[in-house]
Amino acid sequence: MKNTDDSTRSLLASILDLVEIGDGDFGAIGRLAEASSDPESIQLTIDRLSTHPQAKKAFTSRTRLKPIYLAKLHQLPAGTLGHSYAEHMLGNQLKPLQTPPAETEQQFLATHITETHDLWHTITGSKTDICGEIQLEAFYVAQLAVSRFWLALLTKNLLKSLLYDLDATTGYMDALTKGWLMGKQAHSLFGLDWDALWETPIAEVRASLNIVDV
Amino acid sequence: MKNTDDSTRSLLASILDLVEIGDGDFGAIGRLAEASSDPESIQLTIDRLSTHPQAKKAFTSRTRLKPIYLAKLHQLPAGTLGHSYAEHMLGNQLKPLQTPPAETEQQFLATHITETHDLWHTITGSKTDICGEIQLEAFYVAQLAVSRFWLALLTKNLLKSLLYDLDATTGYMDALTKGWLMGKQAHSLFGLDWDALWETPIAEVRASLNIVDV
Repeated sequence: MKNTDDSTRSLLASILDLVEIGDGDFGAIGRLAEASSDPESIQLTIDRLSTHPQAKKAFTSRTRLKPIYLAKLHQLPAGTLGHSYAEHMLGNQLKPLQTPPAETEQQFLATHITETHDLWHTITGSKTDICGEIQLEAFYVAQLAVSRFWLALLTKNLLKSLLYDLDATTGYMDALTKGWLMGKQAHSLFGLDWDALWETPIAEVRASLNIVDV
Repeated sequence: MKNTDDSTRSLLASILDLVEIGDGDFGAIGRLAEASSDPESIQLTIDRLSTHPQAKKAFTSRTRLKPIYLAKLHQLPAGTLGHSYAEHMLGNQLKPLQTPPAETEQQFLATHITETHDLWHTITGSKTDICGEIQLEAFYVAQLAVSRFWLALLTKNLLKSLLYDLDATTGYMDALTKGWLMGKQAHSLFGLDWDALWETPIAEVRASLNIVDV
């Protein structure tokens, strides 16, 4: 690429790597996360999120999720957030993601997004297949106001579809559109106190966040 | 790129060129059009379009637009398709695109899309700025069922936004979503006999095609 600095080159390279490597390679996703986390855009995300009191409070307190015991959450009544989340995790053979301590706002942004990622899957009804991921990626782009990382994942998927799998386009575009509209319409999820909501009916949590199927 | 044939490499290269060169470079767009016009995907577009009787008939007759005289169309009453189209062209200092003869279905696909492009701008209310182009690109992706070229333009724009202009993201995503939804909802425009519609109120043409602002 011409007229382009090293960080932009490395971001583009990490997107093209992901196009080649295939979905779900955590190493490649980690490299993309690093390449897309330039200080300026991360600060912009923090600034924009902080216009919401809930996110501002979260950046100050940097409260983390309490340890999650899936078997225990699974015993909550069907229809609660906790039961639905445990179903999602156990059904997809997922374990809660481990995250490092967060001592700065920048670290908290990454940590909070990572540790609540599967909760966002659950609450938005986004499956773990590629269309579900695309839907959630677009939801993040809408919710975080500016996010180089999630926009990069979304673009990577369109690039992949146009280079290698044109028949996937309609499903991808439908998922992107749905996630974008849902994410714009919903209240801000960042910094929500999920620990207080495990026993609440998921339909009630969705309604309170204005998460509506479009 | 690994495991990738020459045509895919050249398609990717032409997308990255456009990211660098900037919008509206007709040479670079021409190179992308060539790189994205592999025989398989072009045939797939023709096959899918041909499931609509109007498009099937157009591929058989290969009827071209009659010569367009903007000054004459501009004299039609305000609100007609012809007047609106002439306003769009004159206001943006555009001239009807010249296209080569179409002796095959493949040539007709390219020629018809090119010569009706500004009519699609007019009828969908897509401006000629970058968001208007993105809206129309997504509309094409929806309408053509499979289109490597229009999906490439769309993806190029997201790539550009994530590499160089994050603040443009919201406008781009809104435009993409709007174009996609409008394009899915509208009847098939390909092969429409535009020459018969110049004097019809544009609102009436839009309604007959189910083109609705979303």
